[in-house]
Amino acid sequence: MSKKYVVIGGVACGPKAAARLRRLDADAEITIIEKGDILSYGGCGLPYYLSGEVEDLEELWSTPVGVQRDEKFFKNVKNINVLSNTLAEKINRSQKKVEVMDLKTNEKFEIPYDKLVLAVGAVPNKPPIKGIDLNNVFELYHPKDAKKMRGIVEAGKVKEAVIVGGGLIGLEVAEALTKQGVKVTVIEMIDKVLPKMLDVEMSMLLMKDMKKNNVDVLTSTKVLEFEGDSDGNLKAVVTDKGKIDAQLALISVGVRPNIQLAQEAGLEISDNRGIKVNEYFETSDPDIYAGGDCIDNYNLVYNQSLYTPLGDLANIHGRIIANNIHGNKEKFPGTVGTSICKVFDFNVASVGMTEEMAKKKGIDFVTVLAASPDKAHFYPTGKPIFIKLIGERQTGKILGAQIVGYGDVAKRINMVSIGLYYGIKAKDLAKMDFAYAPPFSPAMDNLIVAANIMQNKIDGMAKAVSVMDVKKKLDNKEDFILLDVRGPEEVKTMSLPYENVKYIPLGALRKKYVELPKDKEIIAFCKISLRGYEAQRILEEKGFENVKFMDGGIISWPFECNM
Amino acid sequence: MSKKYVVIGGVACGPKAAARLRRLDADAEITIIEKGDILSYGGCGLPYYLSGEVEDLEELWSTPVGVQRDEKFFKNVKNINVLSNTLAEKINRSQKKVEVMDLKTNEKFEIPYDKLVLAVGAVPNKPPIKGIDLNNVFELYHPKDAKKMRGIVEAGKVKEAVIVGGGLIGLEVAEALTKQGVKVTVIEMIDKVLPKMLDVEMSMLLMKDMKKNNVDVLTSTKVLEFEGDSDGNLKAVVTDKGKIDAQLALISVGVRPNIQLAQEAGLEISDNRGIKVNEYFETSDPDIYAGGDCIDNYNLVYNQSLYTPLGDLANIHGRIIANNIHGNKEKFPGTVGTSICKVFDFNVASVGMTEEMAKKKGIDFVTVLAASPDKAHFYPTGKPIFIKLIGERQTGKILGAQIVGYGDVAKRINMVSIGLYYGIKAKDLAKMDFAYAPPFSPAMDNLIVAANIMQNKIDGMAKAVSVMDVKKKLDNKEDFILLDVRGPEEVKTMSLPYENVKYIPLGALRKKYVELPKDKEIIAFCKISLRGYEAQRILEEKGFENVKFMDGGIISWPFECNM
Repeated sequence: MSKKYVVIGGVACGPKAAARLRRLDADAEITIIEKGDILSYGGCGLPYYLSGEVEDLEELWSTPVGVQRDEKFFKNVKNINVLSNTLAEKINRSQKKVEVMDLKTNEKFEIPYDKLVLAVGAVPNKPPIKGIDLNNVFELYHPKDAKKMRGIVEAGKVKEAVIVGGGLIGLEVAEALTKQGVKVTVIEMIDKVLPKMLDVEMSMLLMKDMKKNNVDVLTSTKVLEFEGDSDGNLKAVVTDKGKIDAQLALISVGVRPNIQLAQEAGLEISDNRGIKVNEYFETSDPDIYAGGDCIDNYNLVYNQSLYTPLGDLANIHGRIIANNIHGNKEKFPGTVGTSICKVFDFNVASVGMTEEMAKKKGIDFVTVLAASPDKAHFYPTGKPIFIKLIGERQTGKILGAQIVGYGDVAKRINMVSIGLYYGIKAKDLAKMDFAYAPPFSPAMDNLIVAANIMQNKIDGMAKAVSVMDVKKKLDNKEDFILLDVRGPEEVKTMSLPYENVKYIPLGALRKKYVELPKDKEIIAFCKISLRGYEAQRILEEKGFENVKFMDGGIISWPFECNM
Repeated sequence: MSKKYVVIGGVACGPKAAARLRRLDADAEITIIEKGDILSYGGCGLPYYLSGEVEDLEELWSTPVGVQRDEKFFKNVKNINVLSNTLAEKINRSQKKVEVMDLKTNEKFEIPYDKLVLAVGAVPNKPPIKGIDLNNVFELYHPKDAKKMRGIVEAGKVKEAVIVGGGLIGLEVAEALTKQGVKVTVIEMIDKVLPKMLDVEMSMLLMKDMKKNNVDVLTSTKVLEFEGDSDGNLKAVVTDKGKIDAQLALISVGVRPNIQLAQEAGLEISDNRGIKVNEYFETSDPDIYAGGDCIDNYNLVYNQSLYTPLGDLANIHGRIIANNIHGNKEKFPGTVGTSICKVFDFNVASVGMTEEMAKKKGIDFVTVLAASPDKAHFYPTGKPIFIKLIGERQTGKILGAQIVGYGDVAKRINMVSIGLYYGIKAKDLAKMDFAYAPPFSPAMDNLIVAANIMQNKIDGMAKAVSVMDVKKKLDNKEDFILLDVRGPEEVKTMSLPYENVKYIPLGALRKKYVELPKDKEIIAFCKISLRGYEAQRILEEKGFENVKFMDGGIISWPFECNM
């Protein structure tokens, strides 16, 4: 007799599991239950619909050749039954049935299963803020949200908008609305945007660019209330730092696993409040699997489970779930937590552990901030990228990377991702053979340079101070020398506005070092601090004992500069 | 007493070794001997100077902030003595001296060393063709070659040019000269361009694009003679397929290791005719090291040494040589042979083993050709890329990748490169967490899709025929069905001009399969053959036993199409 496979959830993990099951088992009866009316949509594309870059919303759930992935498509092409507008109300585990309701007719019925897949996704968090139910206070989770938002924007009803929450979606929407001519303010409770991905100095580089693009970012700011007009439409957002006029607000303060159905069915829930699964994606009921945004993932860098709702993972889960259901036992090894986003022309990517997390975990770590163009320096289209690496001091094992900038960060973050699966060390990375031609990278890839700096630090050759620590020293009025070893022409274009700064170009340092006191701390820097590092070595040759360089150079300085 | 370190060769490996030695040892006397007058130049940038993209030749040997890396620079910044225009004539190993001649004064003298580094690079091959010494028959190895070439091109003396050799430099120059308004013909002896990097079908995709850009590529063609005019200037190139008018020719038929000095000094030479070194870059004389293009590299995929002259490796060698000389023993693990180039807007990259090589080595392998856009399909700037993977059939271990196309190939090739260092298998790659956002990749990265197809082939689920084998069947007039499962609108834009083709859109196949004969071989395809694969599975469901799909789909068809 043919098997009955039922999948609850029709967006990413669910359809992937169903499609793979069909290819594995020609005879199975496969049913997808979806409470909405849109299947297999690319939720990550919603901001690009908002910006107008994606013209028609339907593109998000069409195949690459323009066929809509609707019920008919699933039936004709994949012989999969889709029940859309159908709510799974209850899982009857003892009888192996799902109790559902047709949301159009309110008719209730049961669907029996041999194996059940829960791909029920996430639920957007909704903070208990007064006025959150006003008109034009949105969340962006479903295509219908995007449609409404773009509608009122294109109708000219929105001059100002507030994004509550500086996460991925919030920032992508900030760009999208700005492109639509809206003045956008992002409000974030803590001191940085993209807090899970970035340490504060990297976050500040991003915020600097957002400011250039006319987006106001208010960190360490709390939303107190949404204020409406007499028609119940949003007119302002009240924060602990003042009121901001806004005709549209987006709440994007993260999502949480959708566990209600599983919990009511008595399935185990994990510490991260996801549906608990083992490495085969089996829940505590061996006939029920779960994957996608409703579970958490084992993180190989953290050596613990974390909630990482990512679109690429949902697809991988779906495929492995199908293999396991079919009997081709396959383990999911876990993740490394790779994220990326584009905010205007600034790319931001992250993988593994941040410095903040390494600190929290009590790890003895070393960090590097390496800035340089992403192509051969003479190649005209090169653009700067900033690589921060976090590594274990004892072993040089890479723990995480944050890569931001106008250049190609996607390549380098994926390189680190693969490395993390294998426990790559800085010194291994530094010896690897990567694709070099001037239009693609410098002869020594930026990542190799960063890895070499890390190894130099571990070996005690390179001694660096982070931009954040330099700023702290300046704020504390410490007595030290900031040695700018750039040439005079470079200094004219950008300089640090502090009295601590002294100028000696690197080429003159072997003669002019005598002008420097040996009893003061010296922190050398240049544009990217490769010359800063050379300066450290030269001064050490000359008997100086308290010389360091500023990691990342002036180009990585996230505070105000003289320009 | 301070150590005396002497480096012969001032381009890539040599200056890197010298600079690192200085940072490791403040007291050492470090000397670079360079026969030319230009140091540390980016030889890979010469084609971009030719094209005009790099305006001034000096940019190729300037630092990113515009300081020329000349003798003064090395002295002032790095305290390294550079003897340029100085030829190393002989190594006196017993007395540990290099005998040199100042090429400007013809003065001879000796330089003593404690440790010597040979970074003497490669020598361009010069085939014994009649007329090769005519004016305007060039090689492109040194900046002065580029200067001369650009000079006569900008003087309007070149209408037509011939490139002899379809390697990396040849193709980059083909683009450069075309951009300068020159009609270019590339002549290659064997049946494909970039023969070390690409299998023939991938090479054909590139050649298709070059043709679009008005470059003629003549493969399987031999140059017989360069014909000159009465002034001794090139006027035509005679081949075994006819004569081509040309006022400029470039000979780019590869390079070989420069071993003369080493050989005369009695140092061991490797099977690949490079200077023989161990994994510490020590030659057969423990006081002499060698690195860069004058040695061969151990290839971790081939498990043998190969000659792979690559700029990124030269830099890595130089650094490791310095570490070893200083006593920080460090092994070079070997390479995976990663190459990349851009030819017009078409990017071409390769790593590890080609199918051709796997065949020669008698490996039981499986290949995949996966084509798709490099970004989420709905994201407007996505461009197609073509990924060919070669893997070991038994284990699924990846042996090599060729990635070409208009989209982001650099990212994916480097991902494979790192994987190869760790012996990555298709099924491991397919489960990895990469950075996904619509502007950067599809939710399932192209590489994951390719890896899944490979695993499906290994598992016997996916049965494919390569485009080359399909063409062979067509040429042999075999009786089989080419089942095009695309929709009618797609078929209009591009179709295969053969009577074997039958059209049934995938969405209709579950009904119309009855129109197909069960006793004939069926090869299904669509645009990229994901639907071709679905068709294979559907027909198998229906009891067909001889169904396959065409790897890569019609978009990967390297022969003529109806357009």
